[in-house]
Amino acid sequence: MLYFNNDYNEICHPAVLKKISESAGLQNPGYGTDSCCARAAELVRKKCAAPNAVVHFLVGGTQTNLTVIAASLRPHQGVIAADSGHVNVHETGAIEATGHKVILVPSRDGKVRPEQAAKIVESQSLSMDAEHIVQPKMVYISNPTEYGTMYSLAELEALSAMCKEKGLYLYVDGARMGYGLAAKGNDATLVDYARLCDAFYIGGTKVGAMFGEIVVIPNPSIAEDFRYLMKQRGGMLAKGWLLGLQFEALFEDDLYLQISAHADKMADQIRTTLADLGYKLYLPGDTNQIFVSLPDTLLAELGKEFTYANWEKADENNTVVRFCTSWATVQENVDKLCNALVHLSK
Amino acid sequence: MLYFNNDYNEICHPAVLKKISESAGLQNPGYGTDSCCARAAELVRKKCAAPNAVVHFLVGGTQTNLTVIAASLRPHQGVIAADSGHVNVHETGAIEATGHKVILVPSRDGKVRPEQAAKIVESQSLSMDAEHIVQPKMVYISNPTEYGTMYSLAELEALSAMCKEKGLYLYVDGARMGYGLAAKGNDATLVDYARLCDAFYIGGTKVGAMFGEIVVIPNPSIAEDFRYLMKQRGGMLAKGWLLGLQFEALFEDDLYLQISAHADKMADQIRTTLADLGYKLYLPGDTNQIFVSLPDTLLAELGKEFTYANWEKADENNTVVRFCTSWATVQENVDKLCNALVHLSK
Amino acid sequence: MLYFNNDYNEICHPAVLKKISESAGLQNPGYGTDSCCARAAELVRKKCAAPNAVVHFLVGGTQTNLTVIAASLRPHQGVIAADSGHVNVHETGAIEATGHKVILVPSRDGKVRPEQAAKIVESQSLSMDAEHIVQPKMVYISNPTEYGTMYSLAELEALSAMCKEKGLYLYVDGARMGYGLAAKGNDATLVDYARLCDAFYIGGTKVGAMFGEIVVIPNPSIAEDFRYLMKQRGGMLAKGWLLGLQFEALFEDDLYLQISAHADKMADQIRTTLADLGYKLYLPGDTNQIFVSLPDTLLAELGKEFTYANWEKADENNTVVRFCTSWATVQENVDKLCNALVHLSK
Amino acid sequence: MLYFNNDYNEICHPAVLKKISESAGLQNPGYGTDSCCARAAELVRKKCAAPNAVVHFLVGGTQTNLTVIAASLRPHQGVIAADSGHVNVHETGAIEATGHKVILVPSRDGKVRPEQAAKIVESQSLSMDAEHIVQPKMVYISNPTEYGTMYSLAELEALSAMCKEKGLYLYVDGARMGYGLAAKGNDATLVDYARLCDAFYIGGTKVGAMFGEIVVIPNPSIAEDFRYLMKQRGGMLAKGWLLGLQFEALFEDDLYLQISAHADKMADQIRTTLADLGYKLYLPGDTNQIFVSLPDTLLAELGKEFTYANWEKADENNTVVRFCTSWATVQENVDKLCNALVHLSK
Repeated sequence: MLYFNNDYNEICHPAVLKKISESAGLQNPGYGTDSCCARAAELVRKKCAAPNAVVHFLVGGTQTNLTVIAASLRPHQGVIAADSGHVNVHETGAIEATGHKVILVPSRDGKVRPEQAAKIVESQSLSMDAEHIVQPKMVYISNPTEYGTMYSLAELEALSAMCKEKGLYLYVDGARMGYGLAAKGNDATLVDYARLCDAFYIGGTKVGAMFGEIVVIPNPSIAEDFRYLMKQRGGMLAKGWLLGLQFEALFEDDLYLQISAHADKMADQIRTTLADLGYKLYLPGDTNQIFVSLPDTLLAELGKEFTYANWEKADENNTVVRFCTSWATVQENVDKLCNALVHLSK
Repeated sequence: MLYFNNDYNEICHPAVLKKISESAGLQNPGYGTDSCCARAAELVRKKCAAPNAVVHFLVGGTQTNLTVIAASLRPHQGVIAADSGHVNVHETGAIEATGHKVILVPSRDGKVRPEQAAKIVESQSLSMDAEHIVQPKMVYISNPTEYGTMYSLAELEALSAMCKEKGLYLYVDGARMGYGLAAKGNDATLVDYARLCDAFYIGGTKVGAMFGEIVVIPNPSIAEDFRYLMKQRGGMLAKGWLLGLQFEALFEDDLYLQISAHADKMADQIRTTLADLGYKLYLPGDTNQIFVSLPDTLLAELGKEFTYANWEKADENNTVVRFCTSWATVQENVDKLCNALVHLSK
Repeated sequence: MLYFNNDYNEICHPAVLKKISESAGLQNPGYGTDSCCARAAELVRKKCAAPNAVVHFLVGGTQTNLTVIAASLRPHQGVIAADSGHVNVHETGAIEATGHKVILVPSRDGKVRPEQAAKIVESQSLSMDAEHIVQPKMVYISNPTEYGTMYSLAELEALSAMCKEKGLYLYVDGARMGYGLAAKGNDATLVDYARLCDAFYIGGTKVGAMFGEIVVIPNPSIAEDFRYLMKQRGGMLAKGWLLGLQFEALFEDDLYLQISAHADKMADQIRTTLADLGYKLYLPGDTNQIFVSLPDTLLAELGKEFTYANWEKADENNTVVRFCTSWATVQENVDKLCNALVHLSK
Repeated sequence: MLYFNNDYNEICHPAVLKKISESAGLQNPGYGTDSCCARAAELVRKKCAAPNAVVHFLVGGTQTNLTVIAASLRPHQGVIAADSGHVNVHETGAIEATGHKVILVPSRDGKVRPEQAAKIVESQSLSMDAEHIVQPKMVYISNPTEYGTMYSLAELEALSAMCKEKGLYLYVDGARMGYGLAAKGNDATLVDYARLCDAFYIGGTKVGAMFGEIVVIPNPSIAEDFRYLMKQRGGMLAKGWLLGLQFEALFEDDLYLQISAHADKMADQIRTTLADLGYKLYLPGDTNQIFVSLPDTLLAELGKEFTYANWEKADENNTVVRFCTSWATVQENVDKLCNALVHLSK
């Protein structure tokens, strides 16, 4: 079986494993107070041109989202998100379990529009019953989104400006940040994120690491006492240097971007094949995720050799599915998938 | 100024005040362990024909909702509600503050349809990622709804049947229960609620009491240790007999239904006047709340003498407003309002 | 049966009931936005000589404690309290249910000493594992304490100074504030509380009101958005003017202090009687609570006519019990109790 | 610098790293649904002779404790622990952040006595104010304790019997379970834990794994929907097979016990040396932790070459410190430490 259903089905990039293996026998202080984490954080701050940003390393994405949000909000405040946002759909209510409402805006492509968030703020703050309504205080976006779409730099600038105007924090879930940064159509850099966001995370789990996410916090009011929150929420890894080592491996020599670009290129080949066959993408995009509606008969055959993720029924005879490439996807397997798609479409 | 903006702008029915006043000088044990509460609870169980139902008294509606929901759910479970539901819109995230997600279904008239809730359950439980999604465990409805509409008995039966089939609790927020029970079109009784629901509350604050709501819990698994939850959430009144006294006054001799019927009749008069003037009700209904779209010019004049609640802009020149009657509304003031509506519509 | 077991067994002072009764038929806006609350708040600010303090009214003490603490702390912060503190012992974990640890200091007399709290702060902040330990951020005291003892002004000054030095908030639970202010040995005034505390509450439920507590918040960082927290935690009374009315009645003409002084005098008579009979008070004090160890044989007889609260076994044959007087205690009943004590001690 | 301050300062046992490295290039489904986790869980069930126990893998200890406790308790329930318990002292209030009180019993040696817990249950349940007091529902112990002491099998049996009698869950934090199982004086096996506990965890992070803890849940009422809780609290590792692989490596061929025995033996040598030098152990024990009071002058010199953990001041001139060995401790370094102790004690 060849896996195209997600981007976290292989252990890690060889350079990451090598770095970890080489550390065998060395002794380190615990909980991220080691020199590997310090060096990795410094690398990240440099890439972000944000010498004052606070940088921490956490194990997983849900943990990261819930810790950042718990650190940012007072009890009566909520976070605005697209209805398809990971914090709303796929974290078993992790945000609510910290006491906070996820305030939804409808979105077909996974993005939050500035005017949607602004309207929520205005509607709440101008209400005669304002104190009976959750106070919006943060906008959560994922970029790339859960649908593989991207915010352009102009869109990020507009969101950030609206947030500043309305007194909202802007937080970006970058579980697939690498695949976004490396995408053909992308025009935003880590420097932009550090400039426009109050907090964001750069995903490792899906982009070459064994596990791990980098939280970058340019806004000091979110950063204050952040490590207490990490510990309280179970997110402080005892052998924290394992995270530092992995991100050293990924951020020295731009390995992170190189392997992301590879995954995007593999996805482009699949997209081109699908387009040539006349299939319509569910949404445009040029990151490592492809959402497309395919005939159920074709999918039944394809599924014998390849995994993909079922998303939703398109109509009686067709289903929207997701194909995912990753840093680990090999050319040979993509060729096989594309050949199979061609063959089964005849 | 004559108040038609809500149904909690007068202190309480004279019979309630009399009962409280007469208790002056008497001594009672605290926290609802007194004989007044015991008698009131027994009255309620009789009206509900539910000799085994557990009955408690709380001070307010938000407090009641959050306590029942906290008592009912495990941490990963959520409550399904209409997007207009009080727990979603007007409780400052009280439910999320207990750690639970409010799972929304769209609703124009404030009602949850059985098929909407069933679909959420199926979609979650059949998902390959079920454990990543909040588990729906309760359906919250308000009856009458926030829009003054009502579930018929057949609709309640259908909801209850679906809940039983899907393993959901059914909980009814009856902040305005009296106005619903007394409405012309209503065909459900307290006996039906006790038969069909796992928990529900009968509102006092808006229906003749100084304050107070009656929680009725037919389902023993929600009732277990409920008083611990009341205390923990700040909802156990020290002088609990004040609640018992009020509900004795309201439930002896059916005062509760009589004063509710009066309010509904007053509202009917306003509805008829509006219809005669050619205004279109926002939603049908025969309880004490009237939602209607009126010209802004008329509203500006009307507002000099009468209060009403702004709901939402209908279009550029019209606004949906709410008129509310209550147990305290006097015929004379309704006549004045109707006359003013007629006069201003000429 | 004559009740001496607690100070909340009668409905309210006649002046309070009169004020409430006189409001029948008047219409008010809801949720504490009325003019009665505004007037009462202004009265309180004047008594406190704190023109900028934020004043709110809540229904009960547990609700008040949990709301103030939830409004004050970030998730990783805790509140220092005596092990006998109400928030630790008698609120069913209400503070923990808001996510915060109650950090205990041992105390025989119910008081927190400045050096105890200071030591906790130093121990935490200087620890190599500081981030693994809850960060103390607030000191909770009750005054009078749960044992009827009192902090002197000098003790309050010392606590406040320590809190300022260590970056802690000082919060006073004044459920029995009146009985403290009126006690013979007391030398602190409301002006002192407003000057020395970040937040405190003046109890009504146990001191003449039907229900209700006044929260005074001199520190603006706790006051910010406080009404959101009140609503979220179920503590915003719909007919908020009921609270305003009661506190107008109690704070016009110093009724609050007069009725408190009466209760303390009644308690003094019981204390004198017990001393004359050779019984030893469990703790010194001159407020409305008396803790004394009495023979079980005497208590068995006494209990046929009088209620008291069992506190703890003193030894095999004696039990520490609490007698409570209140604003409602009448001279005749105190005489009866004292006579019975004398009679049964022969 | 040679590290004796903790037992998590090296990456992992070579067999663990080998197993992980060999998995490079293989593809696995996510979130612990893979065959490695299934095999590891089966190994654990066999070692425990508990074919029906539910087994899950989590990344860290605090995460494990908070997830198990959140899964076990209703909102008004608390967990009894020794005042030195990890959940009380070193988790930044993680348990309180899930809403639950940690109910403390004093303990010099880190153990909870059955009669201490029984007394709390009786005192709460028999109180006239039972509903005002947190309901104890679980006993948390760590074994070995934070002080390196151990419960004997007889002590575990007694605790378990008391818990069953009182309706309490028994939960064991086994962060250092291996070092306990392998200790000279130990007479309890994993089979005993599975028989006597409702839930327990077998630590990996401190005993040979890169990271990871095994949760074993013999009691089905705690096990229900446990994976939802794991996901919600941020504890479900995306590449869950990394946990399965590690525990396969540790539980095939009893590697886990062998490396634990080695660490205990290394600690025995240090203990013997200290005893020979006339130093008094703070507490008896034969696991991998040694608590001993040493002169500050000696410690100052020792600290130039060796790390140890400061615990508390013993008196003006002496400090209680902790030495820790681990699976990774090499004979040569222990010899150096012992020689230095001898040398500096002359």
